[in-house]
Amino acid sequence: MRRMFDPADVETLALGAGVLGTGGGGDPRVGALALRRELSVNGPPWLIDVDDVADSAFVVTVAMGGAPIVGLEKLLSDTFADVSVRRLERYLGRSVDAVVPLEIGGVNSLLPFMVGSRIKVPVIDGDGMGRAFPTLDKTTFSIFGLPASPLATSNEHGDGAIVECAANDRAEQVSRSILVDLGAACSSALFPMSGQDLKRTAVRRTVSLALSVGRAMRDARRAGRRPVDAIVEAVQACVPGTFAKPLFSGKVTDVERRITGGFNVGRGRLAGIEGFRGDAEFSFQNEYTRFAVDGRLTAVVPDLICLLDTATGDPVTCETLRYGQRVHVLGLSCAPALRSAKGLIACGPGAFGLPERYVPIEELNP
Amino acid sequence: MRRMFDPADVETLALGAGVLGTGGGGDPRVGALALRRELSVNGPPWLIDVDDVADSAFVVTVAMGGAPIVGLEKLLSDTFADVSVRRLERYLGRSVDAVVPLEIGGVNSLLPFMVGSRIKVPVIDGDGMGRAFPTLDKTTFSIFGLPASPLATSNEHGDGAIVECAANDRAEQVSRSILVDLGAACSSALFPMSGQDLKRTAVRRTVSLALSVGRAMRDARRAGRRPVDAIVEAVQACVPGTFAKPLFSGKVTDVERRITGGFNVGRGRLAGIEGFRGDAEFSFQNEYTRFAVDGRLTAVVPDLICLLDTATGDPVTCETLRYGQRVHVLGLSCAPALRSAKGLIACGPGAFGLPERYVPIEELNP
Repeated sequence: MRRMFDPADVETLALGAGVLGTGGGGDPRVGALALRRELSVNGPPWLIDVDDVADSAFVVTVAMGGAPIVGLEKLLSDTFADVSVRRLERYLGRSVDAVVPLEIGGVNSLLPFMVGSRIKVPVIDGDGMGRAFPTLDKTTFSIFGLPASPLATSNEHGDGAIVECAANDRAEQVSRSILVDLGAACSSALFPMSGQDLKRTAVRRTVSLALSVGRAMRDARRAGRRPVDAIVEAVQACVPGTFAKPLFSGKVTDVERRITGGFNVGRGRLAGIEGFRGDAEFSFQNEYTRFAVDGRLTAVVPDLICLLDTATGDPVTCETLRYGQRVHVLGLSCAPALRSAKGLIACGPGAFGLPERYVPIEELNP
Repeated sequence: MRRMFDPADVETLALGAGVLGTGGGGDPRVGALALRRELSVNGPPWLIDVDDVADSAFVVTVAMGGAPIVGLEKLLSDTFADVSVRRLERYLGRSVDAVVPLEIGGVNSLLPFMVGSRIKVPVIDGDGMGRAFPTLDKTTFSIFGLPASPLATSNEHGDGAIVECAANDRAEQVSRSILVDLGAACSSALFPMSGQDLKRTAVRRTVSLALSVGRAMRDARRAGRRPVDAIVEAVQACVPGTFAKPLFSGKVTDVERRITGGFNVGRGRLAGIEGFRGDAEFSFQNEYTRFAVDGRLTAVVPDLICLLDTATGDPVTCETLRYGQRVHVLGLSCAPALRSAKGLIACGPGAFGLPERYVPIEELNP
């Protein structure tokens, strides 16, 4: 299917992507301002299904890297979202046919629409995670063996680089170093792939999922319902078979946060409210990684742990979570690809230094 | 003029380049081993004069970056000296017609011959410094406004990047960060330029100069003469009008050395020997930058200050200089381009944090 992206859906997408960001990926609402402006100037791009892309098409992912706060400021500079795509096209001697989100959580879910609008190519209804994660190895693209290189990166002055490393982790390391030199916020074009590769690796219909989640939240607010309940219904309607359930409601009694190796790492505790008893504890590394109630694990990566403010219904990022805040905790099952053997090596508890063995969220919450 | 580079000249070139390296640029004698091996496999390249290059030719400089000790080890890995040139050719969609040394001092004076041999293109008899210096802004290419970008860099595994920054200092900063991620020794191809640009910017006949210096030293040793005196004659014969004079002979009484911002920075003192009286002091930042006798300045960058071991006649690098060592200090006037207003901003005393105003070496030693 191929339909025009509706500019009225920008905030809806941002809201849904905020939930699927599971606490990381930056706050997409500021990115929404930049996207709305871009669409008003260059018009909306097409949104197309993964399976409607030609096998021979040339597709790339686009993403922002860097300190989220710097990224949000610079995203508003509208001249560089497409520069990396152009740089990569020049290097490979080929024009891009479509862009696909690297991740559907957070700011990076909006960037492809800016690029699609600017360079007049469709955006794929899918991504490489079905959520947000901090590193490239945690994408289905990488899990299924696609090289991230050649990878183009650029800052708002047009300075940039093309990185070409056999190993994706090395490519990521190099591009992070470049990013620091270029002002801590760069847009990148990476994972150049064929339409055939896209079909083999992408998580499908995740833009639609984010839009459904965002729409359900907005409608629930208007109707005076709890957004968390509306999200559960929306997810199950959009991706049948997905596990979706409120796991806990609590008041934040403790948050411990530190920056380690460029990651926002920490843990926190909740005291039960609204009918939930006991104490819950959670961990995060950019995104929420683990959730347990009274010492019993109820969700762990790569499954999704989403925190929503009980008052506003908004998703709560790991950076902004604070003492006394009241939250609903929503658990969602992840894309099946992340549960494969290779997926769990890349995205499972061990990849985040957690001691647990992975147990699917539906088994933890029968 | 166009003549075949004589493989028998490898050690001669290394010796002369060691002198013109003015204490920095790494010890070219280990590089000579790698070059000799390369020439025995792929044959020697042509050596051509700057003015014999067609205006429309496509020329690049090649250089090793990184910790000298790592660089020397990896230079022996013979598969990557040309990879960066190939990467740049691919990016620019054009084949290189000739390579030109970035600097004629140290290891980087030999690398172009490895590349020339391997990819079968001539080496230019000239360079961008007429000596060695630690950073790209101190090349005549940069002084006369050529962009170092796009710049290709690669390690011995073929991993690498293309860097494209409007400002050369930014391009250098980015490529240094990449180098650290790629194992602290990379070969780079940079300053892609036309033959016309080459003629406008290069310091001419510096490969010939290094060969003359090396030859004079070797002949002097055989004849039982002091190499320092033979160098003076060779330089004046090769580049008429060049100032060349032994400034001092002394025994090292003090060396202070520290690594600051990736540079080998320090100072030292000499007590006069062999008819020289008084005390001399010198400073260095990778290369020797300043020389004074009894508090009176006798040479300062960008003029060349070369230290030679009195026993062996070999050039003495800033890294290996040690207490008790006896040295001849030779002063040479630099290429006129480095004495231009822009040249002195880039390479003069102020660029190295020295308090002195630049005074040409021939005025300091009338």
